[in-house]
Amino acid sequence: MIKKDGTIASPKGFTADAVHAGLKYKNLDLGIIISEIPAQVAGVFTKNKVCAAPVVLDRTLVKSGEIQAILCNSAVANAVTGDQGMINAMLTQKFVAKKFNIKESLVAVCSTGVIGVQLPMEKIETGINRLSENGQADRFAKAILTTDTVTKTVTLTSVINDKTVTMSGVCKGSGMIHPNMCTMLAFITTDANISHELLQKLLSEVTETTFNQITVDGDTSTNDTVLVMANAMAGNEAIKEKTQDYEIFKAMLFETCTILAQKIAADGEGATKFIEVSVSGAPTDERARMIAKKIVGSNLVKTAIFGADPNWGRIVSSIGQAADFEPDDILVKIQNEKVLEHSTPLYFDKAILSQKLKEKEVMIEVDLNKSQGYGKAWGCDLTYHYVEINATYTS
Amino acid sequence: MIKKDGTIASPKGFTADAVHAGLKYKNLDLGIIISEIPAQVAGVFTKNKVCAAPVVLDRTLVKSGEIQAILCNSAVANAVTGDQGMINAMLTQKFVAKKFNIKESLVAVCSTGVIGVQLPMEKIETGINRLSENGQADRFAKAILTTDTVTKTVTLTSVINDKTVTMSGVCKGSGMIHPNMCTMLAFITTDANISHELLQKLLSEVTETTFNQITVDGDTSTNDTVLVMANAMAGNEAIKEKTQDYEIFKAMLFETCTILAQKIAADGEGATKFIEVSVSGAPTDERARMIAKKIVGSNLVKTAIFGADPNWGRIVSSIGQAADFEPDDILVKIQNEKVLEHSTPLYFDKAILSQKLKEKEVMIEVDLNKSQGYGKAWGCDLTYHYVEINATYTS
Repeated sequence: MIKKDGTIASPKGFTADAVHAGLKYKNLDLGIIISEIPAQVAGVFTKNKVCAAPVVLDRTLVKSGEIQAILCNSAVANAVTGDQGMINAMLTQKFVAKKFNIKESLVAVCSTGVIGVQLPMEKIETGINRLSENGQADRFAKAILTTDTVTKTVTLTSVINDKTVTMSGVCKGSGMIHPNMCTMLAFITTDANISHELLQKLLSEVTETTFNQITVDGDTSTNDTVLVMANAMAGNEAIKEKTQDYEIFKAMLFETCTILAQKIAADGEGATKFIEVSVSGAPTDERARMIAKKIVGSNLVKTAIFGADPNWGRIVSSIGQAADFEPDDILVKIQNEKVLEHSTPLYFDKAILSQKLKEKEVMIEVDLNKSQGYGKAWGCDLTYHYVEINATYTS
Repeated sequence: MIKKDGTIASPKGFTADAVHAGLKYKNLDLGIIISEIPAQVAGVFTKNKVCAAPVVLDRTLVKSGEIQAILCNSAVANAVTGDQGMINAMLTQKFVAKKFNIKESLVAVCSTGVIGVQLPMEKIETGINRLSENGQADRFAKAILTTDTVTKTVTLTSVINDKTVTMSGVCKGSGMIHPNMCTMLAFITTDANISHELLQKLLSEVTETTFNQITVDGDTSTNDTVLVMANAMAGNEAIKEKTQDYEIFKAMLFETCTILAQKIAADGEGATKFIEVSVSGAPTDERARMIAKKIVGSNLVKTAIFGADPNWGRIVSSIGQAADFEPDDILVKIQNEKVLEHSTPLYFDKAILSQKLKEKEVMIEVDLNKSQGYGKAWGCDLTYHYVEINATYTS
């Protein structure tokens, strides 16, 4: 697997573009990804019971098995917008279908931004008509941002069945939810030949250990969406389960989702540091992931990391909250330094470890010495700036 | 029911005292509550799977049905301290038993403070020997504090079975957990005549809707403990279920726990505002409480309140995360002003409502229009000072 520079349109047969439609004051706010031919689709969506109109619509599309285009706007979430919100989402589909001569039912729509505000449909329509099939694909990654500080993309290639297969991902998200500026969105394109059913199975599986393992503020958005399009233009034979090709493709999807997830965590609102927590020795992988996520999501751990404080007591307390067994033989490493072993505090030089905690990436490793369960989670520190962003934001 | 000034020793037959034993640099750090005669006991404890030695010990004591004294130290939590921690907790029991001529098995011990540090037993022993049965009861409330900024007490009287019954409570806690300075502790004394079994049943029931409905930072301590002592010295006939006396006593216990819980929420680390969330119209009371707690525990809601921002989108998103049904007819009131009705945004004057959000107490009311489930939760805002306290604390 090779990591390359690229855009969401790097896989064969994809194009992308973006414009400033006037939803934001001046930045790009409307983007499109188009496949030359209909692509197999897979999607995972927010579990929030209050979900946005485009989420409801896309859930249905994904079940149909194919899409050809994804239109995404930022600034307005089209969430808690009632019947009018759904009418506007469907109207957006129509505008895209007409402009690009695609079937309406093959157009997915995504929104991120303020809750409770209707999409300005005139601006959306005008914006769509200014989008081009031969656009500048790198602009798409900018058009979907809200409180994010950087664009987040990845492109991988690999050889499957003698054909070079490319996979590209792009996402946004600076917290699992942002205030009114909510949402994690990720779009992945690939020219691999794989069926909708298998793609959906893989995406659901991979999401559990990637996107679902990041947390910025413990909240789940009304709009979270991950969509994968696979248009088969690499020319490989259709990928089948239990083959080497399947494993290669799964590894690509896992790597793409992992990199995107980590980029979201690192760009968490107000973050100064990226935190990775790995947990081994848990009864099951699932429990290991839960414990890792509890640790990385704890306000107390997050503030300690911000303060470069090797406070293992907060880590152990988080373990105890997420464990379903008595964790009586805990090992904790912070920045590769053992601070607790067999649940017994070890001597360490606090000044040196505190210095290591000033690095931009912080690694916490936990071994529970119970069984073989392993999992990771990613997050960021909790800072004055997080409070500032979320307290001074005017709804 | 009458609310009075008082101390934890206000009910008949109780005394209390506290000293500076040298665990803290200069403040009171070791306190005791004693009943003249053995008292019926009830207790509820942390659900954290990593729990402190005194919690393990007290769980056993509570099952026995009676205790006569509670010794509590601050500054050191005696958590994650292994076998030595348990030996020290039992040694503490012995010291108290000897000094006050009480059976060891009737002495409960509680600790709050730094995790992973052993109790300094010489200081504990010397301190215990300086405690008195005729001490200054008001000092106890100070001796159990850690990052708290105020003492938290309540005293109520009522007439049960022609006898005046008094109930007093004292607690500490400035977050559900604090860093290394962890824990919520609450002690309640009463001279009512009630059996251990009935007292435990009532305490468990009342805890669900009071102490379990506060959240400061979403973390659960390794040491959380609530203990109730009832010594029967008011002279009432033993309280029986399904009687008026039972209802009066239950109301007293509910009121005591509610007031103590609210005081902890209001004194949350770094808090500038107390927040009450009430949820009605949920499928069940339990679900209403879960939703209320999710709202009041959301970092995004907490920062919005800190910023005096009437950001109902964050409230609705929290509802969607905690609901197990589609909430499609939501009413939201902030400071008694309707901002959302039938899930439709209402016009309101943001400047005026923002001004109202600058008050010290913030009320959020939600009606889900599904059924009759009702519940409340309490918390506080998330401020720069919270980050400061938890980032600059040196473990």
